[in-house]
Amino acid sequence: MLSAKKNQILSEVGSGTPMGELLRRYWHPIAPVLELGRRSVKPVKLLGEDLVLFRKPDGSHGLISRHCPHRGTDLSTGWVDGDIMRCPYHGWAFDSEGRCASQPFEEAGPSGGFRDKAGVSAYPTATLGGLIWAYLGPDPAPLLPDFELFSWGHGFVEIIMTELPCNWFQCHENGMDPVHFEWLHLNGNAVRSSPADPEYVPTHLSIDFLEFEHGFVNGRVVETPVVPPKGTYAGTNDVSEGGILCLWPYTLASGNTIEFRVPVDDRRTLNITWQYSVLPDDVPAGKQDQDEIPFWYGPLTDPDTGEILTSHTGNQDFSAWVGQGAVADRTTESLGRSDKGITLLRRRYFEAMEQVARGEDPPGTVRDPEANVNIQLPLMGKSLYTEGMPRRVFEEKLAARKESGLFGIGGFLTVQAGRPDHLQKEYDDIAGVAQMPAADVD
Amino acid sequence: MLSAKKNQILSEVGSGTPMGELLRRYWHPIAPVLELGRRSVKPVKLLGEDLVLFRKPDGSHGLISRHCPHRGTDLSTGWVDGDIMRCPYHGWAFDSEGRCASQPFEEAGPSGGFRDKAGVSAYPTATLGGLIWAYLGPDPAPLLPDFELFSWGHGFVEIIMTELPCNWFQCHENGMDPVHFEWLHLNGNAVRSSPADPEYVPTHLSIDFLEFEHGFVNGRVVETPVVPPKGTYAGTNDVSEGGILCLWPYTLASGNTIEFRVPVDDRRTLNITWQYSVLPDDVPAGKQDQDEIPFWYGPLTDPDTGEILTSHTGNQDFSAWVGQGAVADRTTESLGRSDKGITLLRRRYFEAMEQVARGEDPPGTVRDPEANVNIQLPLMGKSLYTEGMPRRVFEEKLAARKESGLFGIGGFLTVQAGRPDHLQKEYDDIAGVAQMPAADVD
Amino acid sequence: MLSAKKNQILSEVGSGTPMGELLRRYWHPIAPVLELGRRSVKPVKLLGEDLVLFRKPDGSHGLISRHCPHRGTDLSTGWVDGDIMRCPYHGWAFDSEGRCASQPFEEAGPSGGFRDKAGVSAYPTATLGGLIWAYLGPDPAPLLPDFELFSWGHGFVEIIMTELPCNWFQCHENGMDPVHFEWLHLNGNAVRSSPADPEYVPTHLSIDFLEFEHGFVNGRVVETPVVPPKGTYAGTNDVSEGGILCLWPYTLASGNTIEFRVPVDDRRTLNITWQYSVLPDDVPAGKQDQDEIPFWYGPLTDPDTGEILTSHTGNQDFSAWVGQGAVADRTTESLGRSDKGITLLRRRYFEAMEQVARGEDPPGTVRDPEANVNIQLPLMGKSLYTEGMPRRVFEEKLAARKESGLFGIGGFLTVQAGRPDHLQKEYDDIAGVAQMPAADVD
Repeated sequence: MLSAKKNQILSEVGSGTPMGELLRRYWHPIAPVLELGRRSVKPVKLLGEDLVLFRKPDGSHGLISRHCPHRGTDLSTGWVDGDIMRCPYHGWAFDSEGRCASQPFEEAGPSGGFRDKAGVSAYPTATLGGLIWAYLGPDPAPLLPDFELFSWGHGFVEIIMTELPCNWFQCHENGMDPVHFEWLHLNGNAVRSSPADPEYVPTHLSIDFLEFEHGFVNGRVVETPVVPPKGTYAGTNDVSEGGILCLWPYTLASGNTIEFRVPVDDRRTLNITWQYSVLPDDVPAGKQDQDEIPFWYGPLTDPDTGEILTSHTGNQDFSAWVGQGAVADRTTESLGRSDKGITLLRRRYFEAMEQVARGEDPPGTVRDPEANVNIQLPLMGKSLYTEGMPRRVFEEKLAARKESGLFGIGGFLTVQAGRPDHLQKEYDDIAGVAQMPAADVD
Repeated sequence: MLSAKKNQILSEVGSGTPMGELLRRYWHPIAPVLELGRRSVKPVKLLGEDLVLFRKPDGSHGLISRHCPHRGTDLSTGWVDGDIMRCPYHGWAFDSEGRCASQPFEEAGPSGGFRDKAGVSAYPTATLGGLIWAYLGPDPAPLLPDFELFSWGHGFVEIIMTELPCNWFQCHENGMDPVHFEWLHLNGNAVRSSPADPEYVPTHLSIDFLEFEHGFVNGRVVETPVVPPKGTYAGTNDVSEGGILCLWPYTLASGNTIEFRVPVDDRRTLNITWQYSVLPDDVPAGKQDQDEIPFWYGPLTDPDTGEILTSHTGNQDFSAWVGQGAVADRTTESLGRSDKGITLLRRRYFEAMEQVARGEDPPGTVRDPEANVNIQLPLMGKSLYTEGMPRRVFEEKLAARKESGLFGIGGFLTVQAGRPDHLQKEYDDIAGVAQMPAADVD
Repeated sequence: MLSAKKNQILSEVGSGTPMGELLRRYWHPIAPVLELGRRSVKPVKLLGEDLVLFRKPDGSHGLISRHCPHRGTDLSTGWVDGDIMRCPYHGWAFDSEGRCASQPFEEAGPSGGFRDKAGVSAYPTATLGGLIWAYLGPDPAPLLPDFELFSWGHGFVEIIMTELPCNWFQCHENGMDPVHFEWLHLNGNAVRSSPADPEYVPTHLSIDFLEFEHGFVNGRVVETPVVPPKGTYAGTNDVSEGGILCLWPYTLASGNTIEFRVPVDDRRTLNITWQYSVLPDDVPAGKQDQDEIPFWYGPLTDPDTGEILTSHTGNQDFSAWVGQGAVADRTTESLGRSDKGITLLRRRYFEAMEQVARGEDPPGTVRDPEANVNIQLPLMGKSLYTEGMPRRVFEEKLAARKESGLFGIGGFLTVQAGRPDHLQKEYDDIAGVAQMPAADVD
């Protein structure tokens, strides 16, 4: 349970707020590279700031204030003209450094204009893993961490975008919460699959967390069943052997997915899931074209009922977070043993805010270029992702899925509802399996 | 005309407000029994409180706080597990008394959990007339009044639910307003039916009200026409002979319908209409299965235009109430003779709020179990409902309806737009009439 | 750049605010005459006031408060009964002077009612150019200016209505901004037509403004191209020869269109475009039936994407204005040479507010009936509108349009997206041209 003041500090992301300043020390994924290949201009809101992202002819990007300093019109309704972003109203234009590069009518006059007084905010961008990233903090910017998963070559990557009507931190807390997996996902699926007679999965006995340079390893001890349950069963892992990871500043990495809870503003979060669907190990290794990683927008609600979808793992998480309210009220909660990770997480964020206030780098900051190559992560069962899934296991999972109809976690099903059919087909073609008659559970 | 302060007191329903406390001394209908037979969990908002209603295997119900005390997630996204309501996030569960009945991971630890510190608010429920009712006030709860109409056996009952974007009290005032019937319904229908040459109905000459134990009887004297108007004509009734009833706390009872204006919060009302469509008197008497009374959600607006529907009596009322604004501004009204009942109603509510503040029971409270059996009501023309409609009258009404096309009040047409076709057919089958070619006026 | 206080003064339109009082000295178009021929009652919001407009049997109109003084219900859900507007709830009725003309039940009582205490606000209306106009200010009302264009007989008139989610003044400022035409319309069209290789039009070199009795003449000097650009090219005009006009209080007149930015409230504007599509000069002159001028509601957004449309000139303007925010923030703008007209406009509005505060008539007030006949306006190239387009020019424009596919400004294309097909056909029939295969660019 937190005081209202502490709850506010955890939740506010605007410039000048303690958490807003902490978050401005990290890089943020804001859009798929491919999306800006299809449309050259996109309005973006990040940490409460209205911005416009544009793609230059050389494929690099600019990220500047959304409103023209001339008369305030929305630059995202303009166009890219060479390397500059042109305002549609009077043709003023700005380069990716925020400098005013053109004031056509002003320049036609005797004074030659006043470009030097008409700049906009501009932020550096970079690309990695098929995503465009932005840094909104003070110079010098840290390095964008080159985690190993962006270099793996035994999976099929896609990017899923969903905006959630709730604060980012309650989403992030979920990454330090192994117990929810048993209930929200596995038992919830069992109930949906067989409401009259659900078969609950083995129960968690204890959880554990290990902090490392880039975040936290999640561990757990789960009861060993005499008879393993139908469908998927997630067992015990010791933090010393690796686990699911909760990374600074708001990332969950399982190997199968990396999930970013990007703060749009205090009450909205852009959830970006980078899904790595493992391929059978006999498929030749190869990295996808990073500029062509497919993306899709996953729906939050069922268009027929207006209710939040709960058919897939990711949607179940969304439902739990949004169900906590636009900003979770931590003044009335009742924390227990299951919330050990959440308590740890909050404590470390309060400490990190103090570090930033003192002018120090917060945890997870990378500044050494030599160390920023293929950063190894203590993921559980990592060889599955780095080497592919043994063909035999892959075929067993396919068979089990056909039999049970249960949604699986095997790396070859989407974690969110709404996947375009052609992506399942592309994966199946690469994996060398016949198209399944029912592509998914819903 | 009221002061702004008095207007506020009439309108606010939250816990601790004078009207909120008065309303918490009555039982409130919140959902059809059948609806909870189809889905076992339903989020409910009542008197400004967020609640979740669930159905237990024995058919009884629980009504508890909507948000889990653990981490605040929405319990209505969970499931019923035996007799308890299970939170989907970490499996905590609550019984219908609000006691925490399960904390799986906490119980797996050395302390065994802290169930006794993790309860939620819980409210008693009951069923009557195919509806689930709730009581949100202090103990001991009064009895749920067993009005006679819930025992009648000569009609076909259905339940219609519509949420209105306005305060409940302006809806309730309509129940003390006989004059509106002449204009909003009858003359309005005449204008819609024949815009160029509407035939206005006979005019009201006087109105009268008689208070009784459970509310008020509406009476009126209407001009006697030399030539009765086409279609339906509602004539004079003396309060000593019974009339349309306005019951505590917000119910209108005509016999043909009972209409509840259930306060969702200060600016929203759930209108529940319990429609009793009278059958011909030669149809054998029999009470419907109370757990299977059909229900439907009636639309407020026309989906094509977005405008409020006005085709049916109930919809005309909705249009008038919503047209008064989210909360009617009674500081600018101009009351007259037609508002005698409304003035009386307000005065009695202010008195009732004072009674509650003094610790007394308000009007309409029932505490004697022996008196709470088949409570007789001074309804006008009650034999129609208790004995059925004489076959001859029924056939005349059918014929008149075919001729005039006017919407009738004869007890065999729906009072709201949007009735599912199968219900008209069910009624016609029971009544022994051939299906009419056009089932309704719209 | 303005102070926040001055920005607020420019934007607020309510009764008692400086700008609200200035605007209440002018007549405002509120609906097409034909619309009230089709529905006899229409709710209207103007200058923040909720009103109801109704049509009487003789074709004249009433404009009164929207809410009945009895119990506050929405009069726009009632009906016109003879010359009076009848409330649907209890039949009270009001004439177009705001007098209570009927209180049926009150009149049936001994007191005979209290009509004299139950009046509503009422405002005078007039019709001109196929539009219904209203005056909300103090007596004596000025005259509704009879500008010459309402008497022209060489074009096809239609009325286009679009509500915009932004303040009216930022829309009006656009009328003193010749430079935007080069960018928002011409270069924007070039980019949309040929994104990879847009051909920018000749650039503006200087702009000029001339104030006259009813507003301002826009002038400009545009670079003379050696090779004229493809499609439409808008050249230089000197203010002494006339130009596009910006009229009091919020009207842009080009001849081809008159565009009214009618303030609904502080954050919404009803844009009414009166489009005069010029006919070839060999079509016999004749004025349209003013009661039958066609109208349509033009969409603001693309229903598929939710984004603001930008295919047509008017839509491009809407996009720029809405992009400035609900109320443009003039405290952060950077004005230059291109904004000379805007600075002038603001200064003259502040002066006009002071005039009104002193009890004087503001600019553009017409009180002399003899002068209010066919008021001549200094429009650029006016003979095109008064005499029609030479058939040769008309045919050349048609041919150019077929070749380039570019959206033209020739007076025979709609300025907004969404025109009903039958209007293009009606125009083509009158103009004597074969229906074009593609009626418009989008």
